[in-house]
Amino acid sequence: MKLACFGAGRIGGVHARNAAAQQGVTLAALVDPIDTPQRAALAAETGAKITSTEEVFADASIDGIIIASSTNSHAGLLEQAADSGKAVFCEKPISLDFALTAAVVEKVEASGIPCMLGFQRRYDASFLAARQRIDSGVTGPIEQLSMWSRDPSPPPRSYVETSGGMFRDSTIHDADMLRFFLREEIASVYAVGACLISPEIGAAGDIDSLMITVTTVSGRQGQITACRRGPMGYDQRLEALCANEVLTIGNQPQSMLSVASPAGALQAAPENYFIERFAQAYRDEMAAFVAMIRDGTAPLAGIRDGYEAQRLVEAAIVSAKTGQPVQFGADWRP
Amino acid sequence: MKLACFGAGRIGGVHARNAAAQQGVTLAALVDPIDTPQRAALAAETGAKITSTEEVFADASIDGIIIASSTNSHAGLLEQAADSGKAVFCEKPISLDFALTAAVVEKVEASGIPCMLGFQRRYDASFLAARQRIDSGVTGPIEQLSMWSRDPSPPPRSYVETSGGMFRDSTIHDADMLRFFLREEIASVYAVGACLISPEIGAAGDIDSLMITVTTVSGRQGQITACRRGPMGYDQRLEALCANEVLTIGNQPQSMLSVASPAGALQAAPENYFIERFAQAYRDEMAAFVAMIRDGTAPLAGIRDGYEAQRLVEAAIVSAKTGQPVQFGADWRP
Amino acid sequence: MKLACFGAGRIGGVHARNAAAQQGVTLAALVDPIDTPQRAALAAETGAKITSTEEVFADASIDGIIIASSTNSHAGLLEQAADSGKAVFCEKPISLDFALTAAVVEKVEASGIPCMLGFQRRYDASFLAARQRIDSGVTGPIEQLSMWSRDPSPPPRSYVETSGGMFRDSTIHDADMLRFFLREEIASVYAVGACLISPEIGAAGDIDSLMITVTTVSGRQGQITACRRGPMGYDQRLEALCANEVLTIGNQPQSMLSVASPAGALQAAPENYFIERFAQAYRDEMAAFVAMIRDGTAPLAGIRDGYEAQRLVEAAIVSAKTGQPVQFGADWRP
Amino acid sequence: MKLACFGAGRIGGVHARNAAAQQGVTLAALVDPIDTPQRAALAAETGAKITSTEEVFADASIDGIIIASSTNSHAGLLEQAADSGKAVFCEKPISLDFALTAAVVEKVEASGIPCMLGFQRRYDASFLAARQRIDSGVTGPIEQLSMWSRDPSPPPRSYVETSGGMFRDSTIHDADMLRFFLREEIASVYAVGACLISPEIGAAGDIDSLMITVTTVSGRQGQITACRRGPMGYDQRLEALCANEVLTIGNQPQSMLSVASPAGALQAAPENYFIERFAQAYRDEMAAFVAMIRDGTAPLAGIRDGYEAQRLVEAAIVSAKTGQPVQFGADWRP
Repeated sequence: MKLACFGAGRIGGVHARNAAAQQGVTLAALVDPIDTPQRAALAAETGAKITSTEEVFADASIDGIIIASSTNSHAGLLEQAADSGKAVFCEKPISLDFALTAAVVEKVEASGIPCMLGFQRRYDASFLAARQRIDSGVTGPIEQLSMWSRDPSPPPRSYVETSGGMFRDSTIHDADMLRFFLREEIASVYAVGACLISPEIGAAGDIDSLMITVTTVSGRQGQITACRRGPMGYDQRLEALCANEVLTIGNQPQSMLSVASPAGALQAAPENYFIERFAQAYRDEMAAFVAMIRDGTAPLAGIRDGYEAQRLVEAAIVSAKTGQPVQFGADWRP
Repeated sequence: MKLACFGAGRIGGVHARNAAAQQGVTLAALVDPIDTPQRAALAAETGAKITSTEEVFADASIDGIIIASSTNSHAGLLEQAADSGKAVFCEKPISLDFALTAAVVEKVEASGIPCMLGFQRRYDASFLAARQRIDSGVTGPIEQLSMWSRDPSPPPRSYVETSGGMFRDSTIHDADMLRFFLREEIASVYAVGACLISPEIGAAGDIDSLMITVTTVSGRQGQITACRRGPMGYDQRLEALCANEVLTIGNQPQSMLSVASPAGALQAAPENYFIERFAQAYRDEMAAFVAMIRDGTAPLAGIRDGYEAQRLVEAAIVSAKTGQPVQFGADWRP
Repeated sequence: MKLACFGAGRIGGVHARNAAAQQGVTLAALVDPIDTPQRAALAAETGAKITSTEEVFADASIDGIIIASSTNSHAGLLEQAADSGKAVFCEKPISLDFALTAAVVEKVEASGIPCMLGFQRRYDASFLAARQRIDSGVTGPIEQLSMWSRDPSPPPRSYVETSGGMFRDSTIHDADMLRFFLREEIASVYAVGACLISPEIGAAGDIDSLMITVTTVSGRQGQITACRRGPMGYDQRLEALCANEVLTIGNQPQSMLSVASPAGALQAAPENYFIERFAQAYRDEMAAFVAMIRDGTAPLAGIRDGYEAQRLVEAAIVSAKTGQPVQFGADWRP
Repeated sequence: MKLACFGAGRIGGVHARNAAAQQGVTLAALVDPIDTPQRAALAAETGAKITSTEEVFADASIDGIIIASSTNSHAGLLEQAADSGKAVFCEKPISLDFALTAAVVEKVEASGIPCMLGFQRRYDASFLAARQRIDSGVTGPIEQLSMWSRDPSPPPRSYVETSGGMFRDSTIHDADMLRFFLREEIASVYAVGACLISPEIGAAGDIDSLMITVTTVSGRQGQITACRRGPMGYDQRLEALCANEVLTIGNQPQSMLSVASPAGALQAAPENYFIERFAQAYRDEMAAFVAMIRDGTAPLAGIRDGYEAQRLVEAAIVSAKTGQPVQFGADWRP
């Protein structure tokens, strides 16, 4: 199997290396318009040829593409993949423009190409174990779901300015997890947001702290609490109150060492950031991409999941702006 | 010092015993209209005389009263205490009728009697340590506050019917904690509620599961997640994201024993319910009542705190009913 | 029921207060040869009369005595209690002189008086829950038992000099726990000891750090690791490897607050020292003393347990001195 | 760099794959006398040629060899490597025959080849972090060291019969850790062993449960508690009492999911066994082997460490047999 990777940045590097390490897979091409030492090193390490978008789509021997390039290129690459019949692994979001997202999703679904969205948390051992336990029936139904999502430190203003804002850039992952666990139509979305920690983010017109509350059509409740800065470092937790059990996913410590002194017992800090915390999830996700192409195995996140998570954050954005809850439903559009 | 206790039920028993155990304190009187074995035993154990409301207020040697009787008697007893100049320890709520609550608070404050509200969580070592750490400045300001409050099992329908509903009966404690930690004017209150676990509670017209989101005037965010049933038992936790640290208060296990087997390591379940979980807090609270009478020491919760916590849950009730956030502020009234 | 307490020091204060708080119990007498403010305060608080040993034993209305006086007075008081037929609660050790201990135990047993030894850890909720779980059969038999015992800081040289040494003074509690859990004849005892942390203790001819390994006649293994100083504070833990489960008893934190920062998550330090850690165990132990007198309920630790625990530490002392394991058995004597 | 791997079994597979994944490294040869599907798959996956011992040593282009074959082949391969000048990574033990181990170590050291022993725990993030913290000086010196080592289930009799016994086969890893942390000459070794859990192991003449106590020349104390079966699964923990801090290394859970129910909160079980628990340590260890060849970087464990750990377990074997402590020292030989 031959794959091509678009993007030689941080997340591109993760996906390219994981793809190259899959058995029976050749990372044939790496496309990134900017000639950096990082791009050269990644090509050398993975054995990929540095090439162009045109060449990738012209090469019929390439079975699938990995879209890990800048956000504004995602939609165009998805459309070209749909036209050329190549399988796609695409990083979120599809597009910051929701109308374009909707159009691209329609086109990709119509084309019938296998397409997988990069919601790697679905492949994490802890989140997956929680979901499987719920699926097994032993927990009983979820009644209340709480999630936390905090970055170790706020991004620079330059990043914020092109990110689409905290909801679209970051909270989309949490929105996906909300859907992954609640699995029922969302009835209402209420969000509050504020700039509490980073004046730079405020100057860029964005928020850095938010809370979202959703209800489902049967009345179940979910909440997301997120911040661009977590004093404890990278903070990704979940708690599901189910009828019979409460499931809790804690942060993953960097080691199992704890240090006890008169001040108390100090546990090791959580894994530094998403690259470290989800290292294994990224490997498993790429294996799932290969399995999707090879065997037709359905991935845990398809392009429709990307669309729906984005629709949810768009509702949260509307709620945070208007101060009113959004009456959500299958037909709601921003 | 001589005290009288109104109410010989569960919480009355706790307060009466703790009062009798204070050095230099005599529990002189116990008032409960219903002649139960429990009342007789409590009187025997504490040495209190079973007597009447009239006798208590006619007895000038009684310095203070403990109001732990049924909710509908609180307001009247507070008024009589105000008239007679006796110090008061009063269980929440002041009255289920907010207008009456407001009137009683006015009268008590005007009378100048020392009056303390039974928000025992303010005296718990864990909650107090968190608050003191924040006061010390080391944590930096709170940005996001999350709280959970779950009972081990739902109350019977008969209790629910006279309770004033989950918000007024139970969530008022969490509302008080929200105020105790945020210490800033609340700007907005949004709540969702549903009956998810107990059809009996639904039949009584109440809810059993709720989430509340508040913002303060400076944009800080708080949330309460509560349920009338916690599969893990009694669940009282708090997490405060501050600028420099995240403070977490976990549940208190019944013992330090954990049992590891192939299934994993099983920690002891949390203390069974509020009587056990807050046993020490109740002792410390009663000591604070005695100190208030003896030395004039300000208690951690005064009657105004009872009023404000109730005002907050009234706003949550309005929000849950209308589906809209309430624009709160110092002047908001239900 | 009327009780008398010998000793108005730290542990005497604990027992006197707990005795006075028992329902139906009057602490009638307090005996301590030294007139301190502490003695006066304890008498005032408990309502006990400060009196003499002679008066206590002459007073037929006194049902039982609590021996919490200095170690060298224990044996004599036990003998007088045996002569006068009063029930006894005695702090460990019976005597630092093993031959005297043996003689006193013989006499007390011959007299038939109810006699209970102050091994309060047997009444602690965590240690008791572990023992009860083993008794229930669910764990299967213990195979390997590990215990830790560390004080927050080393005692002063003056204390060490009259203490009988670390083994007799402190490790006797751990030896009792070893017996409480293993419940099988000990076959061998090996101990190493050193002075690693406190030159003062070394100057007094004692050790401050030790490890003991025992085997039972069926080959099961136990170990004690102890130190006069624990950097984490008071450290009392146990781990029992059983056939089906591993039971672990951790330290009890001072509160449930944990503080997460970039350094990691800091849990609250353990309860400060034995008075705080075993506060509830001391209450339950005194209730058991009262129940022993009132109902004849067998206590969890009798005078024979005091003798056996002391015999075990004597063997450890011999081993540590000779560098050889002691072949222990029912007949071994130091 | 070209490497050869001897052994295509479980641990051979781990090392071969990790070697092949190193950048700039070719796994050129795989040697295993038995033609299994596992061997074929490993060769296919790593690109290694299945070949013979003779060919490997005849091929001057092979820089280093990985010895992961059966124990009785280790010594011979080490000698051939010494003769041929190839770098070696060797799994423990060097030989079950201590005299042969001593002779081989002499020869390897005399040859000057770079040689690294497979004590992977030295490369584990948790154990390494503990050691580095001690090295930093912040903890103060170690005073008491405790280690636990338990397998999820006892090995079959056939394995036991050729293993050299529990001390030589399994406890050698713990002996190495004892040395890695204590870093001082051992003065005495005392061990007890019994067959408590597996009659099959007893029938093979081996033990399944042991405790070791060591002292260093300055009086510091260490203990190992080990069992061929851990009810909680694979159990590898360490606790170091240092002057200022207590360091604890806990087991690594399979996920961060915990499940709370009325029974308590159940944490995920530890990683299944050493392959899973030390997956990252094995990767880092192989990277260290490559670095040793490429840059001359000293590995964390050299062949002398293999010799010394084995000498320590030989002393434990003598102690367990005789029931007496062994007076150890630099010159002690079994």
